[in-house]
Amino acid sequence: MTYCVGMVLDKGLVMMSDTRTNSGVDNISVFSKMFHWQVPGERVLTVMTAGNLATTQAVISQLEERTKAPEDRDNVLLKAPTMFQVASEIGQLLRSTIQRTQDSNGARGKGRFTASIILAGQIDGMEPRMFMIYPEGNFIETSADTPFLQIGETKYGRPIILRAYDRTMSFEDATKLLMVSFDSTLKANLSVGLPLDMMVIERDTFAPSYQRRITQDDPYFQAISSSWGDALKTAFHSLPDYSFSSK
Amino acid sequence: MTYCVGMVLDKGLVMMSDTRTNSGVDNISVFSKMFHWQVPGERVLTVMTAGNLATTQAVISQLEERTKAPEDRDNVLLKAPTMFQVASEIGQLLRSTIQRTQDSNGARGKGRFTASIILAGQIDGMEPRMFMIYPEGNFIETSADTPFLQIGETKYGRPIILRAYDRTMSFEDATKLLMVSFDSTLKANLSVGLPLDMMVIERDTFAPSYQRRITQDDPYFQAISSSWGDALKTAFHSLPDYSFSSK
Repeated sequence: MTYCVGMVLDKGLVMMSDTRTNSGVDNISVFSKMFHWQVPGERVLTVMTAGNLATTQAVISQLEERTKAPEDRDNVLLKAPTMFQVASEIGQLLRSTIQRTQDSNGARGKGRFTASIILAGQIDGMEPRMFMIYPEGNFIETSADTPFLQIGETKYGRPIILRAYDRTMSFEDATKLLMVSFDSTLKANLSVGLPLDMMVIERDTFAPSYQRRITQDDPYFQAISSSWGDALKTAFHSLPDYSFSSK
Repeated sequence: MTYCVGMVLDKGLVMMSDTRTNSGVDNISVFSKMFHWQVPGERVLTVMTAGNLATTQAVISQLEERTKAPEDRDNVLLKAPTMFQVASEIGQLLRSTIQRTQDSNGARGKGRFTASIILAGQIDGMEPRMFMIYPEGNFIETSADTPFLQIGETKYGRPIILRAYDRTMSFEDATKLLMVSFDSTLKANLSVGLPLDMMVIERDTFAPSYQRRITQDDPYFQAISSSWGDALKTAFHSLPDYSFSSK
């Protein structure tokens, strides 16, 4: 499994992903699921992937045209004039990659090899934008009503984002919020695991403003993980008490 | 969808279930998913169901032998000597009911008509016990390590139970906890809906100690629902702040 979240803030974009991949619980590896490309001063693009690892790696490789010699490569990510066109291109690659592998595996391949992608970034002259790209190749974009996107194991970590997200929040608060959301998910689903990758893209900088890998021994993540349990209990006890007699 | 939770406390058993059933989002009904039977002073049994409604209703009807005339009925729930035997009997009925409907629908029936059941109760001379019964007919029982069971849409409401459950808690606190867990689930999944049914069975009373339906206009549930958002935000802001500069 996987857990990736992208949030659109007034100040820019914040992304976090886990790094655990598994084929059964007895075959676990660490692979980054966050990729980024930039043309300094002109564009920055980040992609997060969930689903079949062979599929998502194939999509990334094709985006970078790794089948060609380095000097012949023509990365569409660096040339497409709009984020919409980048999303379309990734969607087509994703759909065709899944289709090809499914077809070549006959009935056994049906419904397997699927994947989803979050694309976030900004191109000079336009707003920061974020898309969720489906295995069918189509995609949706965030809006004022739905300003964050999740892929993978989305449910455990969703309630706290729904309650605490605020478009005007600082990058620091957004990071804290994502760590809480990831901590809840990690505690509930073994197939989502540390380390986490995170990236902040400040609006109009066209470069990653902040980028980090959060490992097992990260003191801040440890502090969040241990104090969130107590904070939740305090919150719970601050609610009005139920009484059987008054009903 | 459905959401049902059963918790084993030192003081006894607490159960809560939603009542929404749906066949698509445009076909929604209210059906109770909580059933109970008792022999006063000797046993009390509660069943909560998730999954295909025709399957779960058929299981309940067969348990009560509604195919027979009232005077010929022989409810196994009221006669089986142990909770384990009750669970076995329900498991067999559940498995055979699913199998029958699947078989009579050929390839189209495969994997449909499935359901799960939580069974809780106490028989005189024995401890209160709680089981989760799978569509395959087998079952597991709660233990000191895993003292609560969920069926249906379990993920949204799980983190708060993991953090705030305490075996020694009062029935009132357990009710509050379940309401918070249901509120998180209701907010995230439209196919889980009010009203909620709840039941408390105090140890060694062999009768429901408290039973209620929580409706849309329940002032306590409304208070929990609105104050939990604020309490979560306060909890979130009480955590140590993240700093980009110190990393």
